[in-house]
Parts: sequence; C-alpha cells; structure tokens
Amino acid sequence: MAAAEPEAPFAYEGLDRIFHEKARLGIVSSLAAHADGLTFSELKGLCGLTDGNLSRHLLVLDEAGYVTIEKGYDGKRPQTRCRLSDDGRERFADYLSVLEQVLRRATRAAARTEDPTRPLRPRPA
Amino acid sequence: MAAAEPEAPFAYEGLDRIFHEKARLGIVSSLAAHADGLTFSELKGLCGLTDGNLSRHLLVLDEAGYVTIEKGYDGKRPQTRCRLSDDGRERFADYLSVLEQVLRRATRAAARTEDPTRPLRPRPA
Repeated sequence: MAAAEPEAPFAYEGLDRIFHEKARLGIVSSLAAHADGLTFSELKGLCGLTDGNLSRHLLVLDEAGYVTIEKGYDGKRPQTRCRLSDDGRERFADYLSVLEQVLRRATRAAARTEDPTRPLRPRPA
Repeated sequence: MAAAEPEAPFAYEGLDRIFHEKARLGIVSSLAAHADGLTFSELKGLCGLTDGNLSRHLLVLDEAGYVTIEKGYDGKRPQTRCRLSDDGRERFADYLSVLEQVLRRATRAAARTEDPTRPLRPRPA
C-alpha cells in the first residue's frame, strides 16, 4: 500500500523548478556525469544549446549554488569550466528521486484510463 | 549496449514543454486518471493551484489541443469540466516514455560521480 495521500496529491511540491526546466535538466545531468567538470563548449555540444541560452541557465544554477563556474585559460585561450557543487549534486539526487515518484504516479494515472473496468475515484456529490 | 548516442545527448528534444511544466504535469496526470473528466474545483484541489494559475495552465493545454473544457451547470451552479483529449492522452503517454529515458540517463549520470573509479568520458584535447 502507498503511504497516506497528501492534501494535493498532484501538486508535486518537491519537484525543484531549478532542475526541472528542460535545458537545465540536461546541463545538470551532463555535469553529474563529469566530476571534474566540463568546459562551456563541451556543455554547449552535449546539451545542444546556444551560447546565450547556456549562459542564462548557468547563471540560474550558479545563483542557486548548484554549480561553480571557473574562468581560466587553456594555453592562451580563455576557458570556462563548470562543475556541479556538492550541494547541487545532493539536491539533484533528491530531485531525481522525487521525479521518479512523479513519473510512477503519472504512469499509473495514464494506465487507469486505458482500463475502463477499473473503478475511478468517487467524485464528491 | 545502448543505441548510438544522438549528437547532443542531453538536449532532450522529445521532452514536450507543454507537459513538462510542473503545474501542467500535475493537471494532466490528474486528468489522465479520470476518463470522464474533473471539474475546475476538483482540479484545483488535486493540484493545489489557485484559480488564476489553473486557468492559465488550462488555457495552454487547451490551445495545444490536449484538453477539452466544457462549461455547463451542476443544478443552478455554473460548472467547468475538463477532460484530456484523445490526442492529449496519446501525446502524454509519449512524453512519459521520454521522461522515463531522461530519468534513467540522469540517474546513471548522477551515479557515475559517486563511483570515482569508474572511467569518465575522455575529454577532447
């Protein structure tokens, strides 16, 4: 049996909007896979983002404390390296576990209409 | 073995933004579980949304053709009933299957940093 239902079972309170946004979900997943970080160009390629979009989303992640951004040099060329912070990694793991529950609930909901014999939640009079 | 990687493996092209937005994900999941629809008030309660927010998101879903909105009466009281359209239900099933892949990939990525002995993707020189 599932635990007691919250008041608004489809409010998805725990689903952190910072990670949930599609482009940022890609950025953070990429960074999660690379403990020593990725350069701005590598991230652009992995996530299929423009310079402007990637900068904008990195700023949001930086302001939340979820990534660190280091400006340095690769030889003579300026290079920006991005890493997931420890806090970012922990919060991302939390987000993924909430997302898994959300997905499970939605899949169950979607399956319910496909079986019309299964009783629906009674509607208030 | 996984299939060949796409060019930008973390772009998540198939993740329909209409469904991915957190409040709309709750609305559509609720509707998916109720083949004969839900009233505006029931949706508000299930999703923990204000009148204004629920209206705004229903409009987006209606414009995409994913829901139908029917204004009628319950006795003398006006009542709005919302249903997932056939197209909405199909597209939502597609979205959920993409989301499942995204979650699997992100979880794998997050696990990779937790095992520092596991080799990382070689970085281009």
